[in-house]
Amino acid sequence: MPVLGVDVGGTATKAVLVDDAGAVLDVRSRPTPRRGPSVVPEVLDLVAELAWELPAERIGVAVPGIVDERRGVGVFSENLGWHDVPFKDLLADRLGRTVAFTHDVRAGALAENRIGGGRGAHTMLFLPLGTGIAAALVTGGRVHDGDGYAGELGHVDVGHGEPCLCGGTGCLEAIASASAIARRYTALTGREVCGAVDVARRVEAGEPEAAAVWDDAVEALVTALAWTASVLAPEVVVVGGGLSGANGLLLDPLAKGLSARLTFQREPRLVPAALGGLAGCHGAALAAIADHRGEPCR
Amino acid sequence: MPVLGVDVGGTATKAVLVDDAGAVLDVRSRPTPRRGPSVVPEVLDLVAELAWELPAERIGVAVPGIVDERRGVGVFSENLGWHDVPFKDLLADRLGRTVAFTHDVRAGALAENRIGGGRGAHTMLFLPLGTGIAAALVTGGRVHDGDGYAGELGHVDVGHGEPCLCGGTGCLEAIASASAIARRYTALTGREVCGAVDVARRVEAGEPEAAAVWDDAVEALVTALAWTASVLAPEVVVVGGGLSGANGLLLDPLAKGLSARLTFQREPRLVPAALGGLAGCHGAALAAIADHRGEPCR
Repeated sequence: MPVLGVDVGGTATKAVLVDDAGAVLDVRSRPTPRRGPSVVPEVLDLVAELAWELPAERIGVAVPGIVDERRGVGVFSENLGWHDVPFKDLLADRLGRTVAFTHDVRAGALAENRIGGGRGAHTMLFLPLGTGIAAALVTGGRVHDGDGYAGELGHVDVGHGEPCLCGGTGCLEAIASASAIARRYTALTGREVCGAVDVARRVEAGEPEAAAVWDDAVEALVTALAWTASVLAPEVVVVGGGLSGANGLLLDPLAKGLSARLTFQREPRLVPAALGGLAGCHGAALAAIADHRGEPCR
Repeated sequence: MPVLGVDVGGTATKAVLVDDAGAVLDVRSRPTPRRGPSVVPEVLDLVAELAWELPAERIGVAVPGIVDERRGVGVFSENLGWHDVPFKDLLADRLGRTVAFTHDVRAGALAENRIGGGRGAHTMLFLPLGTGIAAALVTGGRVHDGDGYAGELGHVDVGHGEPCLCGGTGCLEAIASASAIARRYTALTGREVCGAVDVARRVEAGEPEAAAVWDDAVEALVTALAWTASVLAPEVVVVGGGLSGANGLLLDPLAKGLSARLTFQREPRLVPAALGGLAGCHGAALAAIADHRGEPCR
């Protein structure tokens, strides 16, 4: 029984076809339609096209932003510019069958918890560091949704005092996201870089300005993780995004900083995400399987 | 079928006898044995005495500190000075029957969520402001335990820079607990007070020093609640402790501060705890009922 998982990302829409056992049968990637008045019908067309190319018994679809899974509604997406779109119903109409509808980061957390870096953890934080920072929590083996509002670790005040696009001040995202690292490096040095990976290379090459920007990001992430350890006590934190493989540069300093900051709290294991950019579509497929079984596992 | 719930507090041990419908049949309060080499057998004796006085079909017992409910172990209590005490087994031996064993604040959260101020909330934070500050989370209608380590909102760094007894810096508890409010007022003015309630009275009387100490506490609580709203998105925050009834002085400024701080996040309703100092024993009784039914509801 093949299952299709589709992850509508800010830039690319990815799809994975898996078998019963979760083995990958096929993968696709397409540009996501641009924001604008026709973005919703174009997204529906794209999902229909992928469903036609990769025939499956069940389909799960994940979208970004604020997502109310219980009502099946995409409440808000800054990047794609939609408000209150009843995706679950629209997808069912367009595809002629029931579709599992979920949130991209929570889908990623589900996948990392079931088949990825946090396999088997009862309590887990999934922290993908990308253009923005959104996180997702697993508590009691289930992904916590807070009616669609949970997981906004990117918009907690870590005390750096700089403004954030959200209107807040001191947000984690404004200092520690991949795009913030690149932007702050350019602001400091006047030198353009190809993203945070480029800044990471300069840190490894021993460039002090790059190291300063990097250390700010690590320090802010330590603050956010120390809070999370105190309040949620995850066994494991699964760090995702393009930088998560850089153990020596990211996970090691994070673990060291966290260990120095915590007193009696439980220190989580920090591990890199195992599913990379496919976590969201794997999670959408898992959501489709869970929906089919009537499980409340999300 | 009467059920007995016992809450072993730092100072007083309280017991409530309830019927099937949760109606209170009787209440007791005793001094908790002091910390020392015999504290554990003395606590066991006290519970046995209460169980003899208030005969019940089922018994639940809650204790403070770090509690591992799954293993039935009191891992650590600063106040009562114990480490790794297998309370569930010891209580079963002492009482000759199975006892539900739980954590005082998580028991309080369970009670406030089922029969108190946060009745029916799917996602809830219970925040009792006492000598210390510990919190408990309800996610997906269940109390989150993090293997006993979750809920330490009192020991997150809210940025005030003062040291905390835990060894950390900037902890919420060191500025916003009832005892911190009293201590900081005395440090500022040299005047002794009878706890935070006394400081609250002075705020109402228009005393500037009292207002300054109070505002610091409110500001720190707003920071902690803003984090919680971003990451956990509770529908409701149930504020407990002796000050929680002071709407105009506590809940109103908290709600106003939180509203000013949050941007796109969901604002939780702030409500006072309904069960007062009996939340813990009500929760212990509910845990006993849930254990009996084989529910995983904690």
